[in-house]
Amino acid sequence: MKEVFNFNAGPAVLPPEVMRQAQAEFVDYQGCGYGIIEESHRAAQFEEIIQAAEANLRQLMGIPEDYEVLFLQGGASLQFAMIPMNIALPGHKIGFCNTGEWSSKALKEARILGAEIEMLYDGSADGFSRIDGVERWPVPQNLAYVHVCANNTIYGTQFKQFPETGQVPLVCDMSSDIMSRQVDVSKFGLIFAGAQKNIGPAGLTLVIIRKDLLQRVPESLPTMLRYTTHSKSKSLFNTPPTFAIYMLRLISDWLLKLGGIQAMQEINENKAALLYNYIDGSDYYRGTADKACRSNMNVCFRLPSEELEKKFIKSATEAGLIGLKGHRAVGGCRASIYNALSQKGVERLVEFMRRFANGN
Amino acid sequence: MKEVFNFNAGPAVLPPEVMRQAQAEFVDYQGCGYGIIEESHRAAQFEEIIQAAEANLRQLMGIPEDYEVLFLQGGASLQFAMIPMNIALPGHKIGFCNTGEWSSKALKEARILGAEIEMLYDGSADGFSRIDGVERWPVPQNLAYVHVCANNTIYGTQFKQFPETGQVPLVCDMSSDIMSRQVDVSKFGLIFAGAQKNIGPAGLTLVIIRKDLLQRVPESLPTMLRYTTHSKSKSLFNTPPTFAIYMLRLISDWLLKLGGIQAMQEINENKAALLYNYIDGSDYYRGTADKACRSNMNVCFRLPSEELEKKFIKSATEAGLIGLKGHRAVGGCRASIYNALSQKGVERLVEFMRRFANGN
Repeated sequence: MKEVFNFNAGPAVLPPEVMRQAQAEFVDYQGCGYGIIEESHRAAQFEEIIQAAEANLRQLMGIPEDYEVLFLQGGASLQFAMIPMNIALPGHKIGFCNTGEWSSKALKEARILGAEIEMLYDGSADGFSRIDGVERWPVPQNLAYVHVCANNTIYGTQFKQFPETGQVPLVCDMSSDIMSRQVDVSKFGLIFAGAQKNIGPAGLTLVIIRKDLLQRVPESLPTMLRYTTHSKSKSLFNTPPTFAIYMLRLISDWLLKLGGIQAMQEINENKAALLYNYIDGSDYYRGTADKACRSNMNVCFRLPSEELEKKFIKSATEAGLIGLKGHRAVGGCRASIYNALSQKGVERLVEFMRRFANGN
Repeated sequence: MKEVFNFNAGPAVLPPEVMRQAQAEFVDYQGCGYGIIEESHRAAQFEEIIQAAEANLRQLMGIPEDYEVLFLQGGASLQFAMIPMNIALPGHKIGFCNTGEWSSKALKEARILGAEIEMLYDGSADGFSRIDGVERWPVPQNLAYVHVCANNTIYGTQFKQFPETGQVPLVCDMSSDIMSRQVDVSKFGLIFAGAQKNIGPAGLTLVIIRKDLLQRVPESLPTMLRYTTHSKSKSLFNTPPTFAIYMLRLISDWLLKLGGIQAMQEINENKAALLYNYIDGSDYYRGTADKACRSNMNVCFRLPSEELEKKFIKSATEAGLIGLKGHRAVGGCRASIYNALSQKGVERLVEFMRRFANGN
């Protein structure tokens, strides 16, 4: 098997140990004679999996008892609509911090649903290259909630501290850095994440919501779009994406074995430091995000010319380093170094970058 | 590996050949060095898969050019809301044919969304044991659309012919019998199906919609809930459930190799006939659905007592015949014999039933 390092922005690399285990038991789960992908979501065997997945997440993230953990579908993009549908308050504005593409999209959905917006921060004038002065952002206390996107995959920026919102619930899109670093869940009203970057395959969306916010959910919403439907039924109102939940369970087992989120965070910091230090010391490559808030998940950089970038991406692919093309909105290069991308992968990338810079 | 026959109602058995292929290439898709579950949904490798899946479906089902094929998430349950949101018409009633649990649930969502309902048929007085007089159902021509559920998993009934709705679009929930028999797609305005019974794993929802109906979609809907969003972006507006789509592609390849839907239908008719003939000839087992409309997918039957049913299900499980418990709403026994459940599986079941009846 060819040695490949997968820097895709998502769906992305999964832990090799998990991939091998899922393969080994794919057609015969724990000797039962068929695959878990073929199992009923009402069967004891799957119940054990979904309960273990939730228990693992609670342990890893330190999720308090007064939060629900929901396994949904539709990605962060559906949450952009479900959040205002469920927890907006009539007559109250929603606070937005616009730090890139994903918060802009969330903002658009809130507007479609008729919400009035209070812009707490807008990074568009800076081309979203920084998240500036978080501690000084004014947060009016009559907002329904404040929406932030923890990590901006396209621009390679990441909140290093979150705004203090007082009594106003903080809603956070952690799609691209969930479980990559420790966060204090009790500071948030709602955390959501598409699974396909750090914690699983595509097709699963995680929502962690403080229980008191469920009282806001209007009874008039379609059943599937109400958080209360899924909290009451323990995410089994209808058939959930069972195989994706099984993978999440394996990945959370792997994280626990590794030493939990603190250990993962240290590994991620080391990986990011290795790559950023090399870029900072080079006069060939140039990081695009402000150093104070650059992402430990998505490292965005440029080469001296677009032509060289094209050549770089092509040569890297040939060398087994795939997925290094920047998002089409910004161009350039991007290395996504999520939890499952190994230290060795980053070392190989740096070696390759050095070689490429010397030769081109 | 233990020989097991999986009669689960969904998620359900998948074709053994497909399971083995997916396992073989799980960590190394076509020699690329990583799994397809880790591949970007924007990569050429995945594009090939989603395009092949659509082409296969078009070929197998004979889907005309003026229909869109969409790969969505959220199951039939989300479609129960999305359909009226997208294609209801202000001032026009929606026609419903209530043949069981799933049409009742769809009806409830239409009501939540404020639609007025015209009941064309209500089978609840008969305990949903039959679908009666379809050819005589009156269909007012000013309805926005008519909703039917092709196959009722819980009650074991199935439409053998569909109502003639004239100019009114016929919307059909085919979750539990899609691609199990030939249907003339051009007779329908919209066909939808959760994949997890006949065509794939859980977490993927198929929608086939006649293009002119897209003109009804209100611009005021949240982006993810508009069919037009997904038709414009070829189901790639956001990250789709990539692995489930990959499995659908393999399963549709398998169906083509088998000889297509006509061949599959014959196999399914033989399987169902084998089981129903045995039940009809037995004075120990009793089928619960009216013979004129019983399902070729879900065979529901009772034993002389609930005690014997419990013992039957337990003994069957021990004999490697799993998933035979009826839905909790009706009790009894149910054998789901979807596309991937082999003739051999049905033969084994009949042998077991005969043995059990003789000994109990």
